Amino acid sequence: MKVIRGRMIGSHNGEAPVRRQDRSQPNGSFQSGYTARMSALQGFLPPLTPKGTSSLVPPMPWYYSGTLLTVEYRTDPANVRALLPEDIDLAPEDPGAVALIWADWQSCSEGGLELLDPVRSQYLEAFVVVRCSYQGTLYSRCVAIWVTTDFAIARGWFQGYPKKLGSIHVTRIFNHGKATPRLEAGAKLGASLSAYDHRLASAVVTLREPSDSNGFVNGHRMLHNRFMPSITQGAGLSFDQLVTMGSTDVDLGTPWRGDAELTLADSPWDELASILPVHEMIAGYYRELGATFAGGDLLVDRSQPV
Amino acid sequence: MKVIRGRMIGSHNGEAPVRRQDRSQPNGSFQSGYTARMSALQGFLPPLTPKGTSSLVPPMPWYYSGTLLTVEYRTDPANVRALLPEDIDLAPEDPGAVALIWADWQSCSEGGLELLDPVRSQYLEAFVVVRCSYQGTLYSRCVAIWVTTDFAIARGWFQGYPKKLGSIHVTRIFNHGKATPRLEAGAKLGASLSAYDHRLASAVVTLREPSDSNGFVNGHRMLHNRFMPSITQGAGLSFDQLVTMGSTDVDLGTPWRGDAELTLADSPWDELASILPVHEMIAGYYRELGATFAGGDLLVDRSQPV
Amino acid sequence: MKVIRGRMIGSHNGEAPVRRQDRSQPNGSFQSGYTARMSALQGFLPPLTPKGTSSLVPPMPWYYSGTLLTVEYRTDPANVRALLPEDIDLAPEDPGAVALIWADWQSCSEGGLELLDPVRSQYLEAFVVVRCSYQGTLYSRCVAIWVTTDFAIARGWFQGYPKKLGSIHVTRIFNHGKATPRLEAGAKLGASLSAYDHRLASAVVTLREPSDSNGFVNGHRMLHNRFMPSITQGAGLSFDQLVTMGSTDVDLGTPWRGDAELTLADSPWDELASILPVHEMIAGYYRELGATFAGGDLLVDRSQPV
Amino acid sequence: MKVIRGRMIGSHNGEAPVRRQDRSQPNGSFQSGYTARMSALQGFLPPLTPKGTSSLVPPMPWYYSGTLLTVEYRTDPANVRALLPEDIDLAPEDPGAVALIWADWQSCSEGGLELLDPVRSQYLEAFVVVRCSYQGTLYSRCVAIWVTTDFAIARGWFQGYPKKLGSIHVTRIFNHGKATPRLEAGAKLGASLSAYDHRLASAVVTLREPSDSNGFVNGHRMLHNRFMPSITQGAGLSFDQLVTMGSTDVDLGTPWRGDAELTLADSPWDELASILPVHEMIAGYYRELGATFAGGDLLVDRSQPV
Repeated sequence: MKVIRGRMIGSHNGEAPVRRQDRSQPNGSFQSGYTARMSALQGFLPPLTPKGTSSLVPPMPWYYSGTLLTVEYRTDPANVRALLPEDIDLAPEDPGAVALIWADWQSCSEGGLELLDPVRSQYLEAFVVVRCSYQGTLYSRCVAIWVTTDFAIARGWFQGYPKKLGSIHVTRIFNHGKATPRLEAGAKLGASLSAYDHRLASAVVTLREPSDSNGFVNGHRMLHNRFMPSITQGAGLSFDQLVTMGSTDVDLGTPWRGDAELTLADSPWDELASILPVHEMIAGYYRELGATFAGGDLLVDRSQPV
Repeated sequence: MKVIRGRMIGSHNGEAPVRRQDRSQPNGSFQSGYTARMSALQGFLPPLTPKGTSSLVPPMPWYYSGTLLTVEYRTDPANVRALLPEDIDLAPEDPGAVALIWADWQSCSEGGLELLDPVRSQYLEAFVVVRCSYQGTLYSRCVAIWVTTDFAIARGWFQGYPKKLGSIHVTRIFNHGKATPRLEAGAKLGASLSAYDHRLASAVVTLREPSDSNGFVNGHRMLHNRFMPSITQGAGLSFDQLVTMGSTDVDLGTPWRGDAELTLADSPWDELASILPVHEMIAGYYRELGATFAGGDLLVDRSQPV
Repeated sequence: MKVIRGRMIGSHNGEAPVRRQDRSQPNGSFQSGYTARMSALQGFLPPLTPKGTSSLVPPMPWYYSGTLLTVEYRTDPANVRALLPEDIDLAPEDPGAVALIWADWQSCSEGGLELLDPVRSQYLEAFVVVRCSYQGTLYSRCVAIWVTTDFAIARGWFQGYPKKLGSIHVTRIFNHGKATPRLEAGAKLGASLSAYDHRLASAVVTLREPSDSNGFVNGHRMLHNRFMPSITQGAGLSFDQLVTMGSTDVDLGTPWRGDAELTLADSPWDELASILPVHEMIAGYYRELGATFAGGDLLVDRSQPV
Repeated sequence: MKVIRGRMIGSHNGEAPVRRQDRSQPNGSFQSGYTARMSALQGFLPPLTPKGTSSLVPPMPWYYSGTLLTVEYRTDPANVRALLPEDIDLAPEDPGAVALIWADWQSCSEGGLELLDPVRSQYLEAFVVVRCSYQGTLYSRCVAIWVTTDFAIARGWFQGYPKKLGSIHVTRIFNHGKATPRLEAGAKLGASLSAYDHRLASAVVTLREPSDSNGFVNGHRMLHNRFMPSITQGAGLSFDQLVTMGSTDVDLGTPWRGDAELTLADSPWDELASILPVHEMIAGYYRELGATFAGGDLLVDRSQPV
């Protein structure tokens, strides 16, 4: 099937007409120029430079070591439905299940240079996951997420996680002293999320016993939309993809299960409490883990050359 | 010219084959479903919700009020050339000119709600601009930029500014007291930029006299690349556009011109000193201003459905 | 009146006995050694070094330029009384009046070096002031205050302001563009205070007209307690002074008066809403100003050599 | 020995004369009033309130759990001497030894409420320790320290640690995944310290083997000065004590010893590189630990009622 591209698609306010170019075949000076640029300017994400050192995010794979504190609860399935695109369905079983997860991460790319300047390596995130169904397959889907660093925002935008900045804290488990829970029955771990100086979520998880799982809501491959509006107001989505992805090299600690308390709030800029209110608590979980992210798969591309 | 799309473009690791869909015409259930989603889920940028309140950035137009402290200098034109894609040329005159600009902004969208919760409204940015030529037209181009908030990062990624987070400070001019320069000859304004806890730039501008301009490097429409790699490792750029844009409703204060001192540094994560070293100072400038951003124009779309 | 000091005041857990020394007269090696130290180690506040550059705060005078957004309201006078030491009385008139003030400061010491590295110069503070009466004189008194920098905390501890860190924002008035109120009737300015990621106060002031004053609650010399507990648990206050102070060189802009809305909240770590609840709004104010702080006066010293 | 106090010590600018009061015996209305206040207003440090909840720091004991990354090196003993008061001598052996220590802490007070809202519990600190001799006893002494929270600053000022705010990071050791060193030979841990957006210290420690100790510089009781200048400019130190203290309930993990690289820098506001330059590296150490702080002992009080 031959697709004709590199076409003119109209003029914009007197600027040069837009060219839609197919980079898969040589078709003129733009194409070759651009290809040449890509070998000359380096970087996975902006900014690009001759060496690529400045790129906000280095190339995959990306490695993660850390802990997850998970609170699972049920909301009205209609609330979950309202957050899904129309071509994505609710999960067939327990469709109102939600996971709010605090992750305390250390991360790096190949070579691990970030670990030696740990301000470039460590961050926290708090994210909200639901399950959904697309073309008969069950997926997990992140519908809200806050992180503490720019490189984490950028990785998320690449992956279709709708990342914003937040202030995030979660109790750590140390092995010595009195200012820490231990990994044992009765341990209490707190967690908080704030954005734009509004507290959005506070949780306390009391561990009860080792568990078979770390919960079930965040257990599938992710189904995410990646998109970017046209630079022209009202012209549609220049970039619009449905993608799926998962982690590899998963290295898991023993999960612990327990009780959870969770308080959610809205702010003028966030709707956590109103879009996914807590109807019934399911459980809380804690687990140490490591994982690798090395990319995913495109399901649908609906990008428009606008 | 008819473009056939919605085609299968191969299978990916056993996932459902990718569909390339043309949303400009009805062609089946995906299309109509997706269109419906867009009316149901609101938001200019992620995350999308039924009301759209959570979106990291509200729709254009975006309004800005603030100040600019500008340091212009010359580097070797080869350094500027090395930061440009191959299809973009150096400016024909003074091609080694660089502007490093500190902006102290208050911003909002239609209705101005952000101004009443100013943590959502205020931010600083430090950005590096060069000039370039594309198809015979002279443009300005931002090659590095740091900001202090997530909404500013997101607006920048939409506009093709290669934004990262930084810690940014610039001396303010107050009308009262002894802890401030006044807007007069001899006034000294300092500025700093740090990222990942490394100081990247420090400047002092000494104002000398009112001026006709605020410098010449950042004076043209911007020429930016917007891009996003494929979610599949090594598969190319799913999104790849060359765009241009400018401000409207520009409301300018009187610029002041003076002398400037500038110290640049590299870090393991940034290359400011090495990619654009200072060969010769041109001048420093200070100006109050307001502007509106309401979008730009697409010049070339090289996105690949990968 | 001769005071005999340098006495032994008991032994502590086998350590050398404590010496209470009078530095006003030579009385042995400690005295002279210490005096010598003070000429050798420099700095107004810790840390001391041979040059004194590292001191968290340089010597007075300290200069301030900035803006004040003030919200005045009435609470139950019993709430104010409960925050005053028993030897300090309520103000005779309008004793329940409270001012919550947001200050947006640029500050420096002699020579103004801080203004050239403005991260060392700029900060915000939100503080709560009541009036009180001591030995027949009317004073203002700060009962809670949050600031954004360490040097501001240290200056406050020196002055008896009970400073903590907070995240503080207040709308600015720029002269250009659409993302700003202007200094005119109808202008709306927002302000917020958060500490430990809990929003403690949000305000909106709508300016109505130029005014004769910037409010009346923060209009007197301050009456503050400075104290430090003994290093020995339960042993009392090693340092305990009642002091008074005020600003000099006050350089005032025209105040504006208007309406104010104010929302207060408690957190597990702060009691703003519960200790000073809003019973009746008085007014909101905005003013530019400059001032100098050059010290104050000791009223009572109750320090104990423990 | 009878000390006569509560005396008049002069008038100040027309204010009421200063009273020096002895709180150890009833001597009038001030005394009883003040005593009553102390039972009515609660809090270990400011601000005081009827319930005491707002106090920046709750009463001792304070509990700590965390990790220490220590870099020990030698500087010229004259540099250490120059940082000691004249009545404090160099350590008799290895007097030029310095420890720069990064601590990653979780802390709480009795009841552990802070652990459930961990933004109130967690912080990092980087501190510089030397050894010294006072009246024949060997002590450790902190000559510079940066922390990440206000409650840590306040505890430090109470203890005589010369605390300032900094941005501090140190590599963590996780048990899973590829983005972490493991506690084993060859593990590399990085650490950084920045203040006012200037990088002051960067370190990399490579662990080699379990060790008998965590270094020797920070191994003694601390000898610190606590002081506060008079509110009156130039009048001397209102509060001036020499104190000693140590930890209790020390719960130690196995220390590891290895090699260390360390880069120090000055800024306009800090003198780390110039006051304690690295002449010879000694070693690097890593250890998990817990400890309790429950107060210390006063050695000398030189406070003046000014």
